[in-house]
This record gives sequence, C-alpha cells and structure tokens, in this order.
Amino acid sequence: MGEFDVIARYFRRAQDQGGVVSLAGGDDCAVLQPTPGQQWLVSTDMLVEGRHFLTTVPPEALGHKALAVNLSDLAACGATPRAFFLSLALPRVEESWLAGFARGLFALADAHGIRLAGGDTTAGPLNICITVMGEAPAGQALLRSGARVGDDVWVSGVLGDARLALELWRGRVQLSGEDFEHVRRAMEWPQPRVALGQALRGVATAALDVSDGLAGDLGHLLARSGVGACLEWAALPRSEILARQAQDLQHECLLAGGDDYELVFTAAPQARSSVEAIARALGLPVHRIGRIEAQPGLRLVDAQGQTQAVRVQSFDHFA
Amino acid sequence: MGEFDVIARYFRRAQDQGGVVSLAGGDDCAVLQPTPGQQWLVSTDMLVEGRHFLTTVPPEALGHKALAVNLSDLAACGATPRAFFLSLALPRVEESWLAGFARGLFALADAHGIRLAGGDTTAGPLNICITVMGEAPAGQALLRSGARVGDDVWVSGVLGDARLALELWRGRVQLSGEDFEHVRRAMEWPQPRVALGQALRGVATAALDVSDGLAGDLGHLLARSGVGACLEWAALPRSEILARQAQDLQHECLLAGGDDYELVFTAAPQARSSVEAIARALGLPVHRIGRIEAQPGLRLVDAQGQTQAVRVQSFDHFA
Repeated sequence: MGEFDVIARYFRRAQDQGGVVSLAGGDDCAVLQPTPGQQWLVSTDMLVEGRHFLTTVPPEALGHKALAVNLSDLAACGATPRAFFLSLALPRVEESWLAGFARGLFALADAHGIRLAGGDTTAGPLNICITVMGEAPAGQALLRSGARVGDDVWVSGVLGDARLALELWRGRVQLSGEDFEHVRRAMEWPQPRVALGQALRGVATAALDVSDGLAGDLGHLLARSGVGACLEWAALPRSEILARQAQDLQHECLLAGGDDYELVFTAAPQARSSVEAIARALGLPVHRIGRIEAQPGLRLVDAQGQTQAVRVQSFDHFA
Repeated sequence: MGEFDVIARYFRRAQDQGGVVSLAGGDDCAVLQPTPGQQWLVSTDMLVEGRHFLTTVPPEALGHKALAVNLSDLAACGATPRAFFLSLALPRVEESWLAGFARGLFALADAHGIRLAGGDTTAGPLNICITVMGEAPAGQALLRSGARVGDDVWVSGVLGDARLALELWRGRVQLSGEDFEHVRRAMEWPQPRVALGQALRGVATAALDVSDGLAGDLGHLLARSGVGACLEWAALPRSEILARQAQDLQHECLLAGGDDYELVFTAAPQARSSVEAIARALGLPVHRIGRIEAQPGLRLVDAQGQTQAVRVQSFDHFA
C-alpha cells in the first residue's frame, strides 16, 4: 500500500465540499471561504511518540487525542471549528493502526463539525502534526490578556486525572482496575471544551486551556494580563480518585499536571450567574477556584488557610 | 536553554503586529483578519531528516527549504503569502543550528512578506512541519482542474538539477566542483515561484508545482482536468550540466526528478504573449513543453521524433 492509497483509503471521505472549504483534495492548497464578519483562529500542535503519547496507546485514542488537543486551543479562544490539516510521519504502513487512528480522528471531527481539508503523509519516526482553523466574530475571540483585578478565576471539569494516570504508568501509585480505567480515559480521551469556549465569548474576560499544568498555564495568562491571582486549594476540582491520594501527589497533579484540556477563564463577579447558566446548559461543571489580584504572581491558600506562593513553571520539553 | 527560551530567542521577532495577523504570540491561537473579497489558500508540508533532507544540509539552507517547499504550494495556486505556522521536533537544543535555521527561514519569509504567526516546539526526532496560509481573490485561485484540450503546457526555470545532486550524493555521477555547487544549490535552495503564480491568475488555466517529478505531478493535473498531454523531449528545460549527462539519467532527472519546485501550468495558445510578457517582467524563463490533448495519459515525443507513453508515477514514501 503506497502513500496515495493510504490517503485515499483512510483520509479521503465522500463528503460535502460546501461550507468554508470550497474545494479540497487534489490541489496544492485547500481553498477556504471566510465567513463575513469573522476572523480566523489558527493553532498547531505536534505529537511525538514517547513524548506526547505512549507506544501502548490504542490508535483510535491517539487519533482522537491528536485532534482533541488542537480543538482545545480553538476552544480556549472561543472559536467555532472549521477546518484542519493533518501531517503524518509513519514508520510503516500498518492498516489496522491507520484504520483505528482515522476512526478516532473523524469521530471527534464529526462531533465538532470540523473538516479535514488537507495534509501531508510521509515515512519517518511516528509524528502527528495538526493545524486547526476556526472562526469567531471579529474582535470577540477569547485571549489571555483580558483578565482584570477582581475577576473570578474559573476552571471547567476536574484537573489532575491525566497526570495521575501517568504516575500510575511510572509505577509511583497503584489503583484498582476501575480507577485505573477512569484515569486512563482522562489521559487518552480528553474532551475539548469547544461549546464552553464559544458560550464564554462576551462573558469571560480571558481564557486558555490547561495543557501543561494549571500553575504554569495560568501563569502565562497572568503575565499577559499584567495581574496576579490567588487560588484556593480546597476549591480546585478533583476526582474522588485523586482526592484519595497523598496530598503532595494531589498538589502535583492539580497544579503541574498537564494534559487536562480543561478551560481556565476569568470573568467579572457580576457574570457568575451567566457562567453558571452556561455550565448548566452544557451539563459541564465549572468551578470558581480563585480571584485575580493586582499583586503579580500566583498564590495558593492551602488546606490550613495559609497563603503560599506557587512556583509558576510549565512543562518544558528541553528542561 | 528551555523550550520557551528557544522560541523567544530564535522565533519571536519584534515586528509589526498589523496586517492580516491582528494578534500573534502568547495566545492559544493566532488571530487572522481576512481581506475582504479574498479566499484563504492553505497547505502543509512535513520534512523528515533522512527523507526530505540529508543530515549534512546546512541549517540555514534547511530553514530556507522548509518554508520554500510550502511557499511553492501557495505559488502553484497563485496566492499571496500571508502567515505560516512552524512545528519543530528537535532531538536537542543546539544553538548554532537554531540560529542558522531561523536565519534561512526568516530571510525567505521576509522576501515574500509572510509572517510567522504561531507554532509548536517539542523534543523528538528532527521533524519540521510548516503550514502556510495565503490569499487570492475569491474564485481566482489556480487549480489543477482547469486544463483544456489545446492548451499549451509550460514550465518555469529548469528541471532536474536537484535530482542530479541527489545522484551525485548517491555516487552515481561525478561532477566538477563548480557543477557540484550549482546542482547542490538547486537542491538546497529552491526558489518558490510566488510572483509567477500570482501573475498567472487569469492567464493560466491550471497549475501545480513540481515537487515529486514532472511526470507524476503533471499526471495529477491531467487526471483532475480529465485530459491528457504530449510533451516534447527536446523542449524540456535543463541546465547545461544536466544536458551533458547520459540520456537515461537526463530522462530520470527531468521526468521523475522531484524537488524542482518549478511551476507547471497550462494556458490557451492565445495567452502565449501574455505568458512571455510575465516571464520577461519577472526575469524568469518559462518554456512551452507540450500540449494538452483529449486522449488521457502522458506522452513524450523523444529525440528521434517517436511518440512514447510515459509511466505516470510520483515519488511514493511507502513504495
């Protein structure tokens, strides 16, 4: 099976050529028709075997996750997903792997109405690079720079389960079979909060997605907004499984976990009822975890009511 | 030196944040403002060490080529380059390599007025994935599907030198030092024909860039247009260096070479003077190499005036 067969069999679909992608497949570029009054939001993420995913990950989960982490960036900006581009370096053509990967990828793409508009396929060490494009009304995209002193800090869902799964793989913790499946699912099947991001346009003042750990990612938002924040340890949302772990492990998973793909956002206190209404409408819990302050840096009120500084550091691939 | 230092030192530039990229750097997505009346043209290419470039390539040439092959796709569609996204997997942080790579990349970017709007940096086997975005007036992008029976087939520049350089590396041919430098330059520093592509809007009926070899790439254009073509061996433009090689090697380099990044396009015979005027204005030679015919497939009139079928096959990464 050659390169063009791989594309034809697994990545070309008989689908509507209308919408924003006016033409696709077979030309040197895809042609995208902007929607009047909208701006494009564009992001790209590269996933490397052994770095971003374990060799043991089922291909269907990998296809899902490769697109999910990209959709999560669109979600963070409140964008409506439109088109994505997939570049794939494969060590070899393995049909069952490709079939599973494509199944996971397209199931999530269909769920969010985003179209595969182009890409590249080559031989090489396994590498998945996806570029996503979405739209938002001009000037209304959620950015990291809009947090204001006095804003609430919110987070969707729960944090830390994906990191707990990693610690399990590393042999640091042991979990029951059921708990293992739960945290593994959090790591392998993250759900990008696309609908939440769109609903937060005009409500949130700033937003980002937690991919490298709450403390580090929130640190970027604070720096861009020129503010600080104080979070409450007790308010950080965690699963019952994580809540049963030792405090230091909880601390690590909640603040430096990574791979959460939940949205952290800020909003004025007057917007609380709007935020809660959005959460109810989407059936997605959101939690108020702290407050934006004028003093730069990130602080945490711990279980004993003591305020401590949090070292703001994201995961660094070259550290 | 960590991931964020790499980005800050080599890939962030103090530059105008205006134009189509209204905001860039630090947010989860770049925000692009469409120009009224324009469509977006988007393409992506992934380059893998040992597959798309030799380990010996100077980093500056690699930075140039990684963007050049992508710009070539915009050129093929007649698009004006606007923004690009760079994802980079690096085995390690090597400052001299990064400095050279960035120098080559940005020199070409600046020459074509295209902005680095976002990207991703990670550890992993060396892999460069670039997504380019350009604009063209709605409905005027050059596609592969517009060739009509009776059209001339044109190609820019010369073909085959990059492939000749590869054969030299493989030890199949020997060249003088000066000739070696010439063909190595063709391989390592391809010049995307961006201005030509734009000038051909409204003149050419179909176009593509030759990246996988003339026969295979033109075959895609013929298939998409539902036509065939007959080329003339004597008319295929080649350097004096290639013209001195054995006929079978010339044949291979000209028809199945790859890495040429010249534009192949079709245009009505009435457009000949326009095409020639464009070529003169740009100081870029173009050559009429054949004719579009109703009979499917690709044929070649050889040096003896005999017409032979050409096997249409592109380079296949998994063949």
